[in-house]
Amino acid sequence: MRHYFDWAATALPLDLPSPSGSVPFGNPSSRHLEGRQARETLEAARSRCAAVLGVPPKQLYFSSGGTESNAIPLQSLLLRKNAAALVSSVEHPSVRENALVLKRLGATIMPIGVEKDGRVTESTLEAALAKIPTLRFAAIMGVNNETGAVMDLGALVKYIRQSSRQGPPVHVHSDLVQALGKIPLDISGWDLDSAAFSAHKIGGPRGVGLLWLRGTKGPQPLEVLGVGGGQEGGIRPGTENTAGALALAECMEAFATREAVEAGYAAATKRWKPLIQALRSMDRCTLIPEDRSDEDPRFSPWILQAGFRGIPGEVMARALDDAGFAVSTGSACSSREQKRPVLEAMGIGRDQSLEGVRFSQGWSTTIEEIEMLTRAIQKILEAL
Amino acid sequence: MRHYFDWAATALPLDLPSPSGSVPFGNPSSRHLEGRQARETLEAARSRCAAVLGVPPKQLYFSSGGTESNAIPLQSLLLRKNAAALVSSVEHPSVRENALVLKRLGATIMPIGVEKDGRVTESTLEAALAKIPTLRFAAIMGVNNETGAVMDLGALVKYIRQSSRQGPPVHVHSDLVQALGKIPLDISGWDLDSAAFSAHKIGGPRGVGLLWLRGTKGPQPLEVLGVGGGQEGGIRPGTENTAGALALAECMEAFATREAVEAGYAAATKRWKPLIQALRSMDRCTLIPEDRSDEDPRFSPWILQAGFRGIPGEVMARALDDAGFAVSTGSACSSREQKRPVLEAMGIGRDQSLEGVRFSQGWSTTIEEIEMLTRAIQKILEAL
Repeated sequence: MRHYFDWAATALPLDLPSPSGSVPFGNPSSRHLEGRQARETLEAARSRCAAVLGVPPKQLYFSSGGTESNAIPLQSLLLRKNAAALVSSVEHPSVRENALVLKRLGATIMPIGVEKDGRVTESTLEAALAKIPTLRFAAIMGVNNETGAVMDLGALVKYIRQSSRQGPPVHVHSDLVQALGKIPLDISGWDLDSAAFSAHKIGGPRGVGLLWLRGTKGPQPLEVLGVGGGQEGGIRPGTENTAGALALAECMEAFATREAVEAGYAAATKRWKPLIQALRSMDRCTLIPEDRSDEDPRFSPWILQAGFRGIPGEVMARALDDAGFAVSTGSACSSREQKRPVLEAMGIGRDQSLEGVRFSQGWSTTIEEIEMLTRAIQKILEAL
Repeated sequence: MRHYFDWAATALPLDLPSPSGSVPFGNPSSRHLEGRQARETLEAARSRCAAVLGVPPKQLYFSSGGTESNAIPLQSLLLRKNAAALVSSVEHPSVRENALVLKRLGATIMPIGVEKDGRVTESTLEAALAKIPTLRFAAIMGVNNETGAVMDLGALVKYIRQSSRQGPPVHVHSDLVQALGKIPLDISGWDLDSAAFSAHKIGGPRGVGLLWLRGTKGPQPLEVLGVGGGQEGGIRPGTENTAGALALAECMEAFATREAVEAGYAAATKRWKPLIQALRSMDRCTLIPEDRSDEDPRFSPWILQAGFRGIPGEVMARALDDAGFAVSTGSACSSREQKRPVLEAMGIGRDQSLEGVRFSQGWSTTIEEIEMLTRAIQKILEAL
């Protein structure tokens, strides 16, 4: 019997009502009947996703996933003169690593630091803004994939807009991959310019995601680096993944409506509470950050990071795996790295950061499984 | 009853033996059991694809499709100093349009012209090479998606190598999207450096493709622009699409083995023959190129381009659609464009190029359907 606590890496797949075999097979860019049928399915999927997110359908672009949805706005900086960007120091590698490439190619990229709790605040933003000449772009994720830290996007974007009101417009992008279906979203209200979403983190297939682009100007809302056949309004080239788009729409309706998110959030908070309390009571365990409470609005109740003194995270994860529990250390996307830049950005030393273990739960996680996980950790701590 | 003659836009999906629901759901980059099971499936799929292509598995990288597999080598040019590239003038938009972006960003990009039959030859290559100072990169597709023109890649790459032997190494990339499963491939023998493949053109799902990279130097064979979580050897970031990779392997084993390609090629040639003969005998029809014979090794027997005098391609395609036949004009990827750059590169005037219609067949196309298509064209010509 396995117990899966790595939903932040990928979610258990939703048993989809429309099996992909029943999706029109045509190329949605073809003008014949087969193409038009596929186009209709694709646009219906887009409208359904848009309804869940509360945005106009034409602001949504299907991509190959969260990584690409993050890369498109970021790489568009290469087409701007005097690109100057702020990127939070706790971003997912698909933002952080891409920013380093842009830097190498001549863009001015500065980090936005985080508080000890892993969150960007107005104060860390202020310090970052002071270091950058004329801001054009900023990337701040919604929910951190390692700690669950929730950023106060509304306040942060407002602060950026106010600080930059003398200068050119600033494009603010947010990686909302770990936020979709997990915390309430207010995409338009947050005054963002773009946001990234992934299907497989909410039960959908791999190879499909969404880029939301506010796009206030002209027929094409963003000049993108990667071009091709002009699909998705010129924003994302490549034959449209009709089946993937439909599956994403179904997952969003299942898990990402306001009602689903509110119910899920409350249930996840309730399930996490005894785990947080138990971990806090364990002598060798330190929550990351240390002061995370058992019902802490600063953190997503779907993700929890904790360290065990003297036990490398890899060792704890392997011991739990042997006992039937799937957990991870950092993001799966950097599981080969021998460092934890997100934790280090929070001021945690290298050695302690390598003790971090990430627990993440999902819709089908039960309180019984969490009790079993707690007992398994206790047993491992006794043995090690 | 519909008759599908637009396989070059997308193929009828193969009924796959392994439904995606039975694929391990874990993130292949996770180290726990679920991750390892997914990794095993992914690597088995890679090995199966590699066996079909006759290359080592470690030279294959799963991507989101043909467009991305073309973009990765091309965009890597942005990381090189003095990038100077030759790009054939009949490339798919995912190469041609991307090359224009690179040009804008400072790369030297020159076109390789084609003969009247739409093929790059040593002579058109010679002319292009004379215009470029120090060649670093060249892109020549294997089979043109609009005319079916087959490039003699072995001879062309040899010519490039010999002409550039005094200078730095040249990376030669080939878009083999319309070649896979259609004509015999000899990837290693052609002495290429990289090649792009797409799943949905051979019956697989959208959102998955392959990049083959010879990679003779160092642990990472190519420095890529788009980075992220380090997946696929750092070549293609984003959670690996296990189900897509497995489906691609199954399609390749069904359609792209040497035996399958040889049998399919012979059958397609035989089926196309009466259509070519019939079109040639129609007063208002001109094959593109005009001298294409009914068994012409210069062209893929899966694709056929023809124009009907005085009838815009769009009109003919719509009339055929109304009669139950799906055909297209250019590539679906540029169906909104009001020009046909591939045909114009062959020396065909703007007006005549807009009369072009593309017919493309697939594994399940029957001789009866082709007879019906021929009669439908005749009927439309009588009416128009």
